[in-house]
Parts: sequence; C-alpha cells; structure tokens
Amino acid sequence: MEIINDEYYMRLALDMAGRSQGQTGINPVVGSVIVKDGAVIGLGSHLKRGTPHAEVHALNMAGEAAEGSTVYVTLEPCSHHGATPPCSEGLVKAGVSRVVVACEDPNPQVAGKGIELLRRNGIEVEVGVLRNEAIKLNRKFIKFITTGMPYVTIKTASTLDGKIASKSGDSKWISNDASRERVHTMRHRHHGIMVGVDTVIADDPSLTTRLSVPGISPARIIVDSTLRIPDEAKVLSDNAVQTIVLTTEKASEARRAQLTERGIQVIVSGKGPRVDLQSGLRRLGEHGISSLLVEGGGRLNGSLLNGKLVDEVVLFMAPKIIGGLNAPGTFVFDGFELMKDAVVLNDLTVEQIGDNVCISGYPAWNE
Amino acid sequence: MEIINDEYYMRLALDMAGRSQGQTGINPVVGSVIVKDGAVIGLGSHLKRGTPHAEVHALNMAGEAAEGSTVYVTLEPCSHHGATPPCSEGLVKAGVSRVVVACEDPNPQVAGKGIELLRRNGIEVEVGVLRNEAIKLNRKFIKFITTGMPYVTIKTASTLDGKIASKSGDSKWISNDASRERVHTMRHRHHGIMVGVDTVIADDPSLTTRLSVPGISPARIIVDSTLRIPDEAKVLSDNAVQTIVLTTEKASEARRAQLTERGIQVIVSGKGPRVDLQSGLRRLGEHGISSLLVEGGGRLNGSLLNGKLVDEVVLFMAPKIIGGLNAPGTFVFDGFELMKDAVVLNDLTVEQIGDNVCISGYPAWNE
Repeated sequence: MEIINDEYYMRLALDMAGRSQGQTGINPVVGSVIVKDGAVIGLGSHLKRGTPHAEVHALNMAGEAAEGSTVYVTLEPCSHHGATPPCSEGLVKAGVSRVVVACEDPNPQVAGKGIELLRRNGIEVEVGVLRNEAIKLNRKFIKFITTGMPYVTIKTASTLDGKIASKSGDSKWISNDASRERVHTMRHRHHGIMVGVDTVIADDPSLTTRLSVPGISPARIIVDSTLRIPDEAKVLSDNAVQTIVLTTEKASEARRAQLTERGIQVIVSGKGPRVDLQSGLRRLGEHGISSLLVEGGGRLNGSLLNGKLVDEVVLFMAPKIIGGLNAPGTFVFDGFELMKDAVVLNDLTVEQIGDNVCISGYPAWNE
Repeated sequence: MEIINDEYYMRLALDMAGRSQGQTGINPVVGSVIVKDGAVIGLGSHLKRGTPHAEVHALNMAGEAAEGSTVYVTLEPCSHHGATPPCSEGLVKAGVSRVVVACEDPNPQVAGKGIELLRRNGIEVEVGVLRNEAIKLNRKFIKFITTGMPYVTIKTASTLDGKIASKSGDSKWISNDASRERVHTMRHRHHGIMVGVDTVIADDPSLTTRLSVPGISPARIIVDSTLRIPDEAKVLSDNAVQTIVLTTEKASEARRAQLTERGIQVIVSGKGPRVDLQSGLRRLGEHGISSLLVEGGGRLNGSLLNGKLVDEVVLFMAPKIIGGLNAPGTFVFDGFELMKDAVVLNDLTVEQIGDNVCISGYPAWNE
C-alpha cells in the first residue's frame, strides 16, 4: 500500500499528465492536484495547445477553497504571458500556501522564474518531488524545446537474430497482437510517423493509429529521395491525416508540383542522392513536428542511428530465428570497426509481452 | 513465506539435485529428503555416477528413524540392479510409510516399475509433485537416455542487432562480467563444449570453466572438417581436459595420426566438405557426451539449428548496436523463405543481467 505524502499526490498528477501524452502537440504534458485539509479539492491537466494549463483547471475545480491549499504540479508553473495568463500569478491570486513542483521548466531561459515569482509572494515552494519521472514523461517536449529538433524514437519488430523479414521479404507475422497494440499506443504519443518509400511501395500502410479506443494519428512522413511514391498509395490518397514527403533536389520539379497540388507537403532536404536526414528533421521541427516515431526499414534506421539523430530505441522481438544472410536486419548501415564504438543504449527496459520481448533504451550520446 | 506441504520438501530435494548439475555425468541429478514427525531426518543427493543414489544417502542419514517416515525424491526410485542395489527395495527394507515422487523414470522401459514395487509392498506413493520442475532439471539426461543424442544448448553473445562481432571481427567486449559468469556456470553443467576451428584459430580459447569457486570443465569438441587446428592451440596443448576433434574424410590421414598420438580423440564424421553434425553428435553420444554447450560461431550455430539438432538456445545480448552488413551474426544459415517457417522458441525466459539481457527458450520441434 502506498503512503500518503507529497509523492502520493504527485504520482496522481503525473498519471493525469501521462495519459494526455499525444494530445498536447508541441506543448508539454502537465498534471496538477490541489489538496487541502487532507483531501483532494482540485484536479487538472493540460489537454491541448492553446487551452488552459493544468493548474488553471485545478484551481477552477477547487474554487475559493484553493486558499491555503497545497498545489502539486508536474512542471514549474509558467511566468510568462502566452496564450493564457501566467499560472504563477494565478496561484498567487488564489492564495495557495504551498506549491510542490516535480521539475523546473526545461527551457533554460525561463527555468526558475515561475518558482521565484511564487516564493517572492510568500508561497512555500518545494521542487524535485519525482523529478526523474517528470523529466522522462516530457522527454519529447524537452528535446524539442531545447534543440528545435524532433524527438526521434526508432521502433523495430524483429526475430531474435535481428531480422525484420525473411530473405524473400516475408514479414507476416513477426510480432504478436499485444506488441502491435503497443506500437499503436506509441503512434498516438508521437507527432509524426516516418517510413521510407520502400515500405510504402512494399506494404502500402495507412500508418494511422488503431486502438480498441479512438486514438490520434500522427502526421505521416515519407522519406523518398526521388519521389517514387505511387499516386495510389494510401498515405497520399486516404486523407486520413497530413502527409509530408522528404525528398532531395534529385526529384523532378513536376512530380513535386503534382504532390503539392494534392495537398501533400514536400520538403526538399539536400542535393541527394539520399535525403539529408539531419536537415530534414530540422525542417520537420520548424513545421511543428516535435516527435517522430520511425517505423522505417533497416536502412532508414541505420542512417538515423549512424547520424546520431535517435533519442530512443524500442525493439520488439518475436521468439523466432529465421536466418538468411541477406534477410533484412533492424539496422542497416556501414557499422563500426570496433565493438567499443558501438552505439550503447542506456537505462535499458526489458519487458515480456506474451511471447514477445520488448527491449528499449536511450542511445548514450543523449547523456 | 512458504507453506509447509509436500511441495515445500520437494523443493528442497530439487534444490539439492539442481546444485549437483554437472557432476553426475550421464546420470540424472536426484535429490531426496526424508521427513518424520514434522522434522527433516534425512538428506541426500546423487553425487557422481557409480556412487549411491540420493535415497540411499538420505536413508543412511536417517538410520533406523526412517521407519514410518515420508521420503521425497525428485525422480522415481530405481527398480533395477545396477552399480548399486535398487532404491525401491531399500525403501521397503527401511520400512518407510510414504514416498512422494516428482517425476517418473524418463526411460519408458523402466518407468513405473519402481513405483509399482513400492506400492506392492504397502507403501503409499504420490507422483507428480513439482513434476515440471523435475523434468526441466533433468532435461539433458532425458534427451540422452531416450535418444542417445547429446542435449545441445546453443549460447550466443551478441549486440541487439544480432551481431557477434564487428565487421572487422572485433568482439571485445560484448557481454558483461555477470553474463560471462553465467556462461561458465553453463559450461560446468554441460558434458562437452563445442566450437568451430575458426574460433580456435581466431581466439585460441582454453574453453575451461572459470568461476569464483572451482568448477568442472567440459570435454572440448572442435569441429574441424580438414584438421586445420594449429598444434600450439591451447585446447591441444594445455592438457586441462579431454579434447575431441570432429572431422571429415577430407582430412589427411597423417594429420589424424598426429593428433591421435598427442592424445586427442579424432572422430571422422562424413565425407565432407563439412562435418556431418547429426552423425557427429550421435558419435559423441556414444562416447558418453550426454550434453553439449555450443559456443561456436554463427555458422556452426546456423548449421545445428537448421539441422534441428538444438534443444535449447540461450542468447546473451549487450545493449549495443554495431551495424555492418558483413558483421557476423548469431545464426548464419540459408534461412527460411517465410516468417511462419522460422524456428520458434517456446517457454521463453527473459532476464536482465546488469545491462545485459538474456533470452532463452526451447525450439518448438522438441514439443
């Protein structure tokens, strides 16, 4: 049984924030709980960009009872006038006594200012309760807000010998239903989903989010250096969600115009022959894509990894061994000469999902 | 806290049996606990081929107190006159009241006869307490006694993308210290250890068991179709433990004679160009090698797997991605055309060992 303390209420605030992942666009997820006289009196979370922050919802729910209360919030209350008035001021006005913050604003330019404002107004502030959980929860937001680059998660589904298909290209099926449901949950939680054009040609996927309950589908980003993408591809024709094509100067102007006319956004990134992924990601960031789930083939995975453009790796493995020297692998790139130079994943999580195994971690360069 | 019941004492018997793995040669491991008036009065396990069975040791410890007791034993007491008198008769003579058996003798020719003898003599017999654990514990023995073929475990140490070395052949280091200690524990528990000659040429390993306490080193089996093994190789020259070379008719008679003269056993298996592994394993079984740990390269692993000669697969993975199309993989073989034909591992176990992951299971053909 849990013990009732600061962590107890912060965990609820984190839970509320966590379950809003995917719906706040380039904004962070934030949860807030207000407690007074031993009882919860307010709950709130940030739901969508341009709508009230978590504390505002929680204060609304608490009403006048907020006076003298303790407010738990997973992210430092803001101090700037944006789409909404600053939350710090709102907390001061409501007359709260104590504010418990999980982590500071990741933007170094504003970090601490909200906390300072609260303290200056006589509010007791405690910072750092469940800080690591809060940082992990907003890792995508933090990457984007501090670098302008989308947070990149690579997801693979392979056999135990690291193959994503047989030598003949067959991949039906590698992962089990529960793993696939995880993948759709990941889609919901990312802003964009990226595949190479070969995947589009081979499988014609819709790349939408399909769960037992409605989910949000990410923008679809196709890496296609010469615009070989077929007109009848689902991602071009189903109008389910925005599609962006990353290409190169090698692609014909005419084809670019054709696609643009159909409402497809075409971003030219580099001279070719292959798409410059680094600048492509930056351009996607400029277009407001703050996180990217890569479900590409081994070559796209390998290029991104080799370019140190990856923030998280999630490997689903089926309990199978398929063999075949030319069967495509999870990460196809030139590779390192020495084992000590291999990309190391930190903070490894290993989970059994039925008969599948899911191994995930964070490339060490992000330390 | 555990509850004291039949399983409680059987678990102790299994624990005693389990910790003797590796020292009983082609014999099973067996543990026995004798209980009377609510107290343990006898303990025993089979220690070595040709020495007393578990029940005999336990009866000796109990002495005359064995009369009217309950005897727990992980394997059906034997009914045949072998190196020692039959245990069933010993139990009858001692006047025990009840015998609890985990699993029947796996040899279908003798299964049930020991239990029958006990029952005929008025002893209450219960069979099947922790049966699955007992069967798993003696899976090597069961394979060997029922087929004459050694139980084959393939162990690999790879990156997450399934590479056992970099493209330049570097493999220092893939797995961590704790994983390596597991591997040495596995060596202790197998009768033979098998590698390809290329591993001997590249690494010159001693293939002995090195633990923080003394262990037993398995016989070393080198697969070497043309006897390219260098004279100065440790496995030929250190006299640490028996070395057997599996070769083909393609190997020169002179070289065979040379090796035999040095005390190396040379087994010719097949015409070549490659060693016939199926018949090679059968020959090893005839030589009393009842279990084999394969620490070979990807090619040996692939050939054994493709030949359905594998009983267990243990994959250690380091949290690394190395890449390289030509970097050697864990299982090198022609591979299957379709994903549905891939070798499936059943009863998967997944363990985190520090920053390493260990995935193990049993190929489905053994069902």
